[in-house]
Amino acid sequence: MSDILVVGSLAYDSVKTPAGQVDRALGGSANYFAVVASMFAPVKVVGVVGEDYAASDLAVLTSRGVDVSGLQKKSGKTFHWAGAYDGDMNEAQTLATELNVFADFNPELPATHRQARYVFLANIDPELQLKVLDQVERPRLVGMDTMNFWISSKLPALRKVMERIDVLLINEKEGELLTGKTNAIAASLELMKMGPKAVVIKRGEYGFVLRTAEEFFILPAFPVAEVVDPTGAGDSFAGAFFGTLAKSDAGLSVAALKEACVNGCLLASFTVQDFSIRRLTQLTWADVQERGGAFERITRR
Amino acid sequence: MSDILVVGSLAYDSVKTPAGQVDRALGGSANYFAVVASMFAPVKVVGVVGEDYAASDLAVLTSRGVDVSGLQKKSGKTFHWAGAYDGDMNEAQTLATELNVFADFNPELPATHRQARYVFLANIDPELQLKVLDQVERPRLVGMDTMNFWISSKLPALRKVMERIDVLLINEKEGELLTGKTNAIAASLELMKMGPKAVVIKRGEYGFVLRTAEEFFILPAFPVAEVVDPTGAGDSFAGAFFGTLAKSDAGLSVAALKEACVNGCLLASFTVQDFSIRRLTQLTWADVQERGGAFERITRR
Repeated sequence: MSDILVVGSLAYDSVKTPAGQVDRALGGSANYFAVVASMFAPVKVVGVVGEDYAASDLAVLTSRGVDVSGLQKKSGKTFHWAGAYDGDMNEAQTLATELNVFADFNPELPATHRQARYVFLANIDPELQLKVLDQVERPRLVGMDTMNFWISSKLPALRKVMERIDVLLINEKEGELLTGKTNAIAASLELMKMGPKAVVIKRGEYGFVLRTAEEFFILPAFPVAEVVDPTGAGDSFAGAFFGTLAKSDAGLSVAALKEACVNGCLLASFTVQDFSIRRLTQLTWADVQERGGAFERITRR
Repeated sequence: MSDILVVGSLAYDSVKTPAGQVDRALGGSANYFAVVASMFAPVKVVGVVGEDYAASDLAVLTSRGVDVSGLQKKSGKTFHWAGAYDGDMNEAQTLATELNVFADFNPELPATHRQARYVFLANIDPELQLKVLDQVERPRLVGMDTMNFWISSKLPALRKVMERIDVLLINEKEGELLTGKTNAIAASLELMKMGPKAVVIKRGEYGFVLRTAEEFFILPAFPVAEVVDPTGAGDSFAGAFFGTLAKSDAGLSVAALKEACVNGCLLASFTVQDFSIRRLTQLTWADVQERGGAFERITRR
């Protein structure tokens, strides 16, 4: 088992969906990722929070053994995102983005973090992703996520990151934006040419496409009849994906990648069943195993 | 092995996609269905064509042993549909619908057709679907498709058909329209309450959701990097689905339904690789088997 370093956002999210709404609930890519990944392997988080960040929210991570020594606390407010889902639960409409302390975020890795074997660069400015890569020493596996904003505004830096990572995890719409291919299969092949050794296109309720040098592995999402809030599903997928790889420490074997994707689907399916990280905090390993058995029956001939 | 009766449209389609275009190429739900289903079991077609219907187009069916004795030839022109796909290959934009002889279509089943064991009511006016049901004698399995136009304009008749059939095959968007549920999992559960013993929601490049009384079976589509023309994919799915069930004649067992869905995906994946029925007419059983093996590898852990 190896340790995982994640660099990303810690945030408060105000979210409205057909199922209800929450105001300033715990969110951010690094939170979803760390809560999930810590079920599989030790996790270190690097990010920034404001003075308003509640001790109980920090305890969500520390109570799971997550190393928060790389977390910066700055004067000002924590990053706040407000969004809504209306009808199409696969795509959020952003209502407000208040970067606050996140605007000047400059990731600095403590010495203990530089030797992390598994590194996940969550969706942040690609120039910051490059700064993190410059600080880590020979990680075994590096993954990244990104979003349309960076694809549109910082493509050269983003392309540099892509050349230096092993696994790209990306939404279908963002994969389309980056490649010009509306077909996810074609997009995955184009993305492979940009550097990664493996590409995972996340398709929301439609699951994922995994592309390696030689193979595809494609499954639907675990079926959930009532999606309460899709926020964090992609980060939960990434957390379970990286957690699985770090736990087995078997590198990029196809078997390991397949198991990582299946666990990604499973954990994301819990995340969407409630707002914020609520469902995740009540989750037991037995719940995951039970759903894993159901997922296998549902997708197996 | 049992025989299959399909009632649907025979048409000429003018289609434009990012990959090119065709003018008045062979199309129609009954044609796609029959060409595919005849690879599995004997097929009888009931429909109507105009005086312009080419002998070579009729030969597409007769050369495959399809019984066309229930086909009506009327004075006037064959049904013509013009459509375009632009970006989103999962949904066609209709440019023109010239019903022609199809406007007065009144399905009359020859005596030889009334005892068909497997009956597929392709996407036609639900009042005509009811007329067909009144003419068949104790079929073992009845399936149906429909479209947004009938859901909006003839819902009461459509609901009557749904109460009398075994398997509903429907597009995701149409399932949403019929149930008010944007989530396909929730929609499948609602559709089950309307009468069918099994529901297949067709999701284009995202595959399908099969719902039976007790189980889900969900898979993505077979990955195709270049979709040339999605027209007829759903009817090809239905043809392979019904063909598989008729060939084994094992009723609505879950194993039979799963195999039917897998073959549905496989055959639909060939259809989209060229315009009209072109790819299907060159298809060998070895091609299908080879792709079946690949599909299993791609979706199996």
